[in-house]
Amino acid sequence: MNAPHQPAAAGDYKVADLSLADWGRKEIDIAEHEMPGLMSIRGKHAATTPLKGVRVTGSLHMTIQTAVLIETLKDIGANVRWASCNIFSTQDHAAAAIAATGTPVFAWKGETLEEYWDCTLDALSFPDGKGGFLGPQLVVDDGGDVTLLIHKGYELEQGDESWVNSPSGSHEEQVIKNLLKRVAKERPGYWTRVVADWKGVSEETTTGVHRLYQLAEADKLLVPAINVNDSVTKSKFDNLYGCRESLADGLKRALDVMLAGKVAVVCGYGDVGKGCAASLRAYGARVIVTEIDPICALQAAMEGYEVTTVEDTLGEADIYVTTTGNKDIIRVEHMTAMKDQAIVCNIGHFDNEIQVDALKALAGVKQVNIKPQVDKYVFASGNAIFLLAEGRLVNLGCATGHPSFVMSNSFSNQTLAQIDLWAHKDRYENRVYILPKKLDEEVARLHLEKIGVKLTRLTAAQADYLGVPVEGPYKPEHYRY
Amino acid sequence: MNAPHQPAAAGDYKVADLSLADWGRKEIDIAEHEMPGLMSIRGKHAATTPLKGVRVTGSLHMTIQTAVLIETLKDIGANVRWASCNIFSTQDHAAAAIAATGTPVFAWKGETLEEYWDCTLDALSFPDGKGGFLGPQLVVDDGGDVTLLIHKGYELEQGDESWVNSPSGSHEEQVIKNLLKRVAKERPGYWTRVVADWKGVSEETTTGVHRLYQLAEADKLLVPAINVNDSVTKSKFDNLYGCRESLADGLKRALDVMLAGKVAVVCGYGDVGKGCAASLRAYGARVIVTEIDPICALQAAMEGYEVTTVEDTLGEADIYVTTTGNKDIIRVEHMTAMKDQAIVCNIGHFDNEIQVDALKALAGVKQVNIKPQVDKYVFASGNAIFLLAEGRLVNLGCATGHPSFVMSNSFSNQTLAQIDLWAHKDRYENRVYILPKKLDEEVARLHLEKIGVKLTRLTAAQADYLGVPVEGPYKPEHYRY
Amino acid sequence: MNAPHQPAAAGDYKVADLSLADWGRKEIDIAEHEMPGLMSIRGKHAATTPLKGVRVTGSLHMTIQTAVLIETLKDIGANVRWASCNIFSTQDHAAAAIAATGTPVFAWKGETLEEYWDCTLDALSFPDGKGGFLGPQLVVDDGGDVTLLIHKGYELEQGDESWVNSPSGSHEEQVIKNLLKRVAKERPGYWTRVVADWKGVSEETTTGVHRLYQLAEADKLLVPAINVNDSVTKSKFDNLYGCRESLADGLKRALDVMLAGKVAVVCGYGDVGKGCAASLRAYGARVIVTEIDPICALQAAMEGYEVTTVEDTLGEADIYVTTTGNKDIIRVEHMTAMKDQAIVCNIGHFDNEIQVDALKALAGVKQVNIKPQVDKYVFASGNAIFLLAEGRLVNLGCATGHPSFVMSNSFSNQTLAQIDLWAHKDRYENRVYILPKKLDEEVARLHLEKIGVKLTRLTAAQADYLGVPVEGPYKPEHYRY
Amino acid sequence: MNAPHQPAAAGDYKVADLSLADWGRKEIDIAEHEMPGLMSIRGKHAATTPLKGVRVTGSLHMTIQTAVLIETLKDIGANVRWASCNIFSTQDHAAAAIAATGTPVFAWKGETLEEYWDCTLDALSFPDGKGGFLGPQLVVDDGGDVTLLIHKGYELEQGDESWVNSPSGSHEEQVIKNLLKRVAKERPGYWTRVVADWKGVSEETTTGVHRLYQLAEADKLLVPAINVNDSVTKSKFDNLYGCRESLADGLKRALDVMLAGKVAVVCGYGDVGKGCAASLRAYGARVIVTEIDPICALQAAMEGYEVTTVEDTLGEADIYVTTTGNKDIIRVEHMTAMKDQAIVCNIGHFDNEIQVDALKALAGVKQVNIKPQVDKYVFASGNAIFLLAEGRLVNLGCATGHPSFVMSNSFSNQTLAQIDLWAHKDRYENRVYILPKKLDEEVARLHLEKIGVKLTRLTAAQADYLGVPVEGPYKPEHYRY
Repeated sequence: MNAPHQPAAAGDYKVADLSLADWGRKEIDIAEHEMPGLMSIRGKHAATTPLKGVRVTGSLHMTIQTAVLIETLKDIGANVRWASCNIFSTQDHAAAAIAATGTPVFAWKGETLEEYWDCTLDALSFPDGKGGFLGPQLVVDDGGDVTLLIHKGYELEQGDESWVNSPSGSHEEQVIKNLLKRVAKERPGYWTRVVADWKGVSEETTTGVHRLYQLAEADKLLVPAINVNDSVTKSKFDNLYGCRESLADGLKRALDVMLAGKVAVVCGYGDVGKGCAASLRAYGARVIVTEIDPICALQAAMEGYEVTTVEDTLGEADIYVTTTGNKDIIRVEHMTAMKDQAIVCNIGHFDNEIQVDALKALAGVKQVNIKPQVDKYVFASGNAIFLLAEGRLVNLGCATGHPSFVMSNSFSNQTLAQIDLWAHKDRYENRVYILPKKLDEEVARLHLEKIGVKLTRLTAAQADYLGVPVEGPYKPEHYRY
Repeated sequence: MNAPHQPAAAGDYKVADLSLADWGRKEIDIAEHEMPGLMSIRGKHAATTPLKGVRVTGSLHMTIQTAVLIETLKDIGANVRWASCNIFSTQDHAAAAIAATGTPVFAWKGETLEEYWDCTLDALSFPDGKGGFLGPQLVVDDGGDVTLLIHKGYELEQGDESWVNSPSGSHEEQVIKNLLKRVAKERPGYWTRVVADWKGVSEETTTGVHRLYQLAEADKLLVPAINVNDSVTKSKFDNLYGCRESLADGLKRALDVMLAGKVAVVCGYGDVGKGCAASLRAYGARVIVTEIDPICALQAAMEGYEVTTVEDTLGEADIYVTTTGNKDIIRVEHMTAMKDQAIVCNIGHFDNEIQVDALKALAGVKQVNIKPQVDKYVFASGNAIFLLAEGRLVNLGCATGHPSFVMSNSFSNQTLAQIDLWAHKDRYENRVYILPKKLDEEVARLHLEKIGVKLTRLTAAQADYLGVPVEGPYKPEHYRY
Repeated sequence: MNAPHQPAAAGDYKVADLSLADWGRKEIDIAEHEMPGLMSIRGKHAATTPLKGVRVTGSLHMTIQTAVLIETLKDIGANVRWASCNIFSTQDHAAAAIAATGTPVFAWKGETLEEYWDCTLDALSFPDGKGGFLGPQLVVDDGGDVTLLIHKGYELEQGDESWVNSPSGSHEEQVIKNLLKRVAKERPGYWTRVVADWKGVSEETTTGVHRLYQLAEADKLLVPAINVNDSVTKSKFDNLYGCRESLADGLKRALDVMLAGKVAVVCGYGDVGKGCAASLRAYGARVIVTEIDPICALQAAMEGYEVTTVEDTLGEADIYVTTTGNKDIIRVEHMTAMKDQAIVCNIGHFDNEIQVDALKALAGVKQVNIKPQVDKYVFASGNAIFLLAEGRLVNLGCATGHPSFVMSNSFSNQTLAQIDLWAHKDRYENRVYILPKKLDEEVARLHLEKIGVKLTRLTAAQADYLGVPVEGPYKPEHYRY
Repeated sequence: MNAPHQPAAAGDYKVADLSLADWGRKEIDIAEHEMPGLMSIRGKHAATTPLKGVRVTGSLHMTIQTAVLIETLKDIGANVRWASCNIFSTQDHAAAAIAATGTPVFAWKGETLEEYWDCTLDALSFPDGKGGFLGPQLVVDDGGDVTLLIHKGYELEQGDESWVNSPSGSHEEQVIKNLLKRVAKERPGYWTRVVADWKGVSEETTTGVHRLYQLAEADKLLVPAINVNDSVTKSKFDNLYGCRESLADGLKRALDVMLAGKVAVVCGYGDVGKGCAASLRAYGARVIVTEIDPICALQAAMEGYEVTTVEDTLGEADIYVTTTGNKDIIRVEHMTAMKDQAIVCNIGHFDNEIQVDALKALAGVKQVNIKPQVDKYVFASGNAIFLLAEGRLVNLGCATGHPSFVMSNSFSNQTLAQIDLWAHKDRYENRVYILPKKLDEEVARLHLEKIGVKLTRLTAAQADYLGVPVEGPYKPEHYRY
């Protein structure tokens, strides 16, 4: 019942159990069938290998689907190193299968935070053949941890020690600072060399993208970045339809709980919240939404959800799901006031949506581990709550994340972004770009045949009437889908 | 059973039957209760009257909801003249109630095309007190007919006679040309004077907005324009939730047809198509979607709709709804191949989505009028189809259009746009603008209390973490909702 | 805007306006296409005319669909007289079309209660050619009014005057008593002669069936009765899917109200309530259910509805719909405590689910008629509610009732029941029967082809494994579907 | 990754791994919170112990929920022995927890058929203290295997050897015959003694109930039986809402497949099929239904599902689910013609809905095991299908079956049935009984508070009007819910 805590490192990889490679490979084969976009890109670019020899570091949940992404990047020429971007999200058989092919991968389910950031560094460290390390030329990021590490390391080497020496707001923050101090000793000037070679990053997630825009606005972004999250075929598919499939999967594998008849609170009604709410309602739960944004709140109301505050649901709701990208959504004072045996989980990128540290520190609280990623916290009052995946992404911590087909959309965008960044490395500025709509439509198009969709084709007269090319793109930039 | 064809014109208005004014007023009272956004704007600006004395021409379906919009514009100072923007969309009791208050309105249900364009001209013609006419200073447009007329009239007065003398692709086109020729004789230089005073237009609909962007791109746009359609609180509410309510209403009032068990084809899966498909499915119809855009097609597939071509549905489907904004979607060869007694209708802005003229001209076809806006066309084969509202907006032709609450969102945007255009008339260029997100959020906010929504409020720390103001706006411009 | 109050009686009929017959006929033609079950029965029995010369009285909403039922009964030989079973449910063009064919029909939209019961008597009175009247041999009943009248008349003629002389609980009750006293004078012994010829009744509705079982249990039932309501193809179709289509239709035609975002209370979660709740939710309303039965309440909860009492929703809910078959569900003290401009309506068979009489009698209340079947009641507090169809069936009072296709199921059962009653008139006892499952399946089967359903056929080996005939019936009697 | 094949038998039990008992106990604790019906019955009868000393054999999926049932039976006095009713459905931690309490349980996930039937015999064999065995006085059955074994054993001891010596249609049939022959040698006269003590059986499932009615009709039923399946709170909850939750759970845990956009075929539209179809559609799959029964087919059509034959979906559908209770639904010739990598599974009680034996025997087929209960069969053509749980119940084989809350309904009925059978053992005949509606309502009532439902209470006047007791039961026997 315990997740492995000692990776069976042997060659240039660290994974839980290499003997799982065969099983992983079987599931990769199945996933390839469900990922027509990636496979098509592979087919199209395998001959020209646009990323030939390019050093690519990936920091992205090490799942079966990611394995297909990794092998796509390799097929088009890249030299890949990989880490997961979450301590619980690795599927060990996927990591094993990748390691077995000789690709350096550093990831296992249930890392400590120290191990996690060491893995991130490992994924960044391309041996230079002389005992030293080169950095990546491109980064595939999810949540921005690699981007953060390089920026913070570079800042330190530029002589700004204020951050590493400041008091830390969380344990994780201190772990990063410790790592940077260690690197400063072991590899002097390393981050400056990394930045010199670094040509770009493509970022997957709302939260990571938000960080990138903040860096760009502050004029601190060190490379061109492509915002993959806001491709329509990412945000309106992965975030929405992905969560519609994987939230319930996480809840079910964690607690086998009946959703029908339950009162479920979804905090946030963005794309992720929309997918979560739709799924819970479809199971027969009564869904209550919380929102800060009046437009999203009105959308929720138009779909028939009650919209109110977390406070107003305490004692009534059975399940809480945070989806906001914001912090301190479910606070300790909420948790102690919940209905006995309420379930609390998060499906936003970071775990600070729920005050987990404060929960653990609460006087009189007793933590009972039910099984990996499922904990019961019993309060002094006798009431208890269930916390899933320690507040980290419940779909990846308690289940296997989004299914392959929707990830094929996201990862097709990632791959096209990587190709684009490399192709235009001399032209792009250190800003945040979005992929052109034509590519967005192309990603969609690559997924239609697999599910039997037959498109209508514009006549020339119709295209002329609309003032769009017959082949697209079809919509103005501001179109919302 | 017959719609009135002779307006009971008396003073400066033309409506079907002034005696309907009392009934209209009662329904306006009810609508005001359902339109909190408009009423709130009224309350806020009634004292300062930001449109004081401004001549405003409206071309927008003359319904009960529009009556509330008109009276809001008047309350904030405007001098209003109004026409409908569709020959079938007027609610005669609404028009009567407006006429009864002394506001010039030119609209009745069942106009001929000649009458329709005359009404549009009437709405444009503000008596100058000397027997002549001034034009509007602001225009509220829906579909762009007023904008078209002014632009075409101005072009003619600029000496370019090519268009008015070219062969017409439709009867309506010829009607417009005839009107312009008549005005040229009766009011020489009129359009040039109109353009001199004209300060801006706010446009309501996808189709009209599309026209505006085309004018702007061609550098022919004569005034600043505000694209109201693409306010989130318009396109993602009116187009989507409005149609989700009013399509079935049109079908039911037209034919009382059972929707459960039927096969329904929705052509186009934009916001309007999404609303229509959701509604039909909820009634138990099996919905098939047609699309040209791979992204929208993939969205439809993710919702479980079959996506194929119109051709592939012929003989199988019972109901066809066009929502595309494009032309020639349902063609004569489609209609003759449909299942016997299939229902064909359109909910896109213009009636050219269905080839109605060609249908009427088809050899051997026999038209049987069932009741106003419901016609049966019997083919030589013996099979028949039902055509609703002669291919014009079925929700307005056969029912009463969108309900008040959602129109309050759209019309709040219209009103804010009118105020904005006038306030910034000296600053805006002849381009197409979108209302700032702050106003969009404000429109949403004005509608929350009425339906019992309770918003969560960001803490300062959370706002800081997100990098947004506590009061909003909350989302980046590219956010799609 | 006014419903006709004086029927244009001429021959042996009373209808609102005979000139509507052409329009009615066109809609009957359309309905025939949507009623494959009835048309198939017509085709099958037209030659053998199993009801040849049989006097049939119908008391059932005089709609377009009922017109197809009437003509089916006539086609298979019956001598038919008809009245509506609700003062608001007649479609005047349907009644006109039936009258125009020479069938005696007594029905118009907006009858007084006195007129209503006179019409019922007219429908019962087959001229005997000698200036007197015969009664029906078979009755098609909906709600049991004809059955009630005959039983009460017979009781009176048997010498039991207790009921007709007792104080009346409602105005309607007194109207019935007055009628019976008048008949007693004008047609002595009439009811006894009627009962002598009467061979059976088929009853359509939950409420009417409930009355029949009560009569049978009390050993007072005078004829064999067939409970058509509890054919699966009636109760699980008409009640559920019919209301899912027609409730919103009634609300929309009455008030054009936006349903999305509203809080709607559905009282009762039987088949009718299930259909209503599903419809309202699909429109984006938040639905609250009230129930007395724990099983139905648990079903509602499993579908994600909040289940609570009417009292707990006052001030929060916008729309109330009663579906219970019980009385005093919405009481005056509820109505005065509702949110301003709440909408109150009933879709159960009788109008006593809402305390309309008490509402009208309330001190300080002011009734404002908006249009036929839509009234605003303004309370002394200044708050108001809208009452639809005076508390009678909102779908029939404010719209046109259920659509044809689902009524074809119900009416096929009615027709088969009439044939069955006549065929077995010598064998049946004075009990309540249900149609055999084989006929129930047959009714379903008759409707499949029209909507493109392709059934799988059991192999002999499979049928043997299941222990059922290849041709059905397939399920045990207790099966619930 | 391998399921245990050697039970760690020690005392009077056989389970996979007794060390899982602690984990099982934690989950039993959680389940108790979700099973208010069972816990309430426990509380009510713990003092009176109505089953005091009664020997009860259970043959029912050995899950966490069943553990709560077992401990409820023990709490009310029973002497329990248990086996699972499916080779894949046991949750090993649940079995361990039960074994750890000293209750004899014989069940592990992944039994062979020989082991399965041996376990069934073990569960039937109560040590008599003299080295021999007594049989059960009551049986809790699911699918009827215990009932079958006793009846067949008794038949053999009555001298009818025809069945045990006949050729077997399946491997399992032969396993049963071999077992009976062995018992005949080892325990002469055993079944006759068992039958002498046996007082009744309560049966859980549609399929088992069907067998009971067949026995009763053939006058071969040896004891009174209670049909628990057709309690409303079982068939309309467990079958419908249970499968709505657990089908997708099985699919997800087996293959992590994206359901949105897939074409899924649900064979059978009974309660189980209704739940499966609703779930798949909610995930965004396009659902096609197959049916033999015209009524169920029409229901499916009214919900907007395409209804056609399996044959018509081959090459188009991605997922097949059988729910019929019939055999040979998915045949080998279907599987070889399916789309590459189609998923095939069953959620009906028995595995003969899919021709698994014939699939395995097919020339050229290659079986690739992906993980336990997930197999890929590659055909000679190169195409493949995935078969889940070897055709056995996919929700129990690949996930953990229905969630606790719905099982609390089913098992409350089971427990009430056991109490009822014992209480009336001297009065009941060897027929199939259904629990009285009052108990059915009581089971529902016990589950309302947990999910916050507030019932409305009839007034005396209302109850009188309806002719029902204020406390219920509220509906006639034929009511379908």
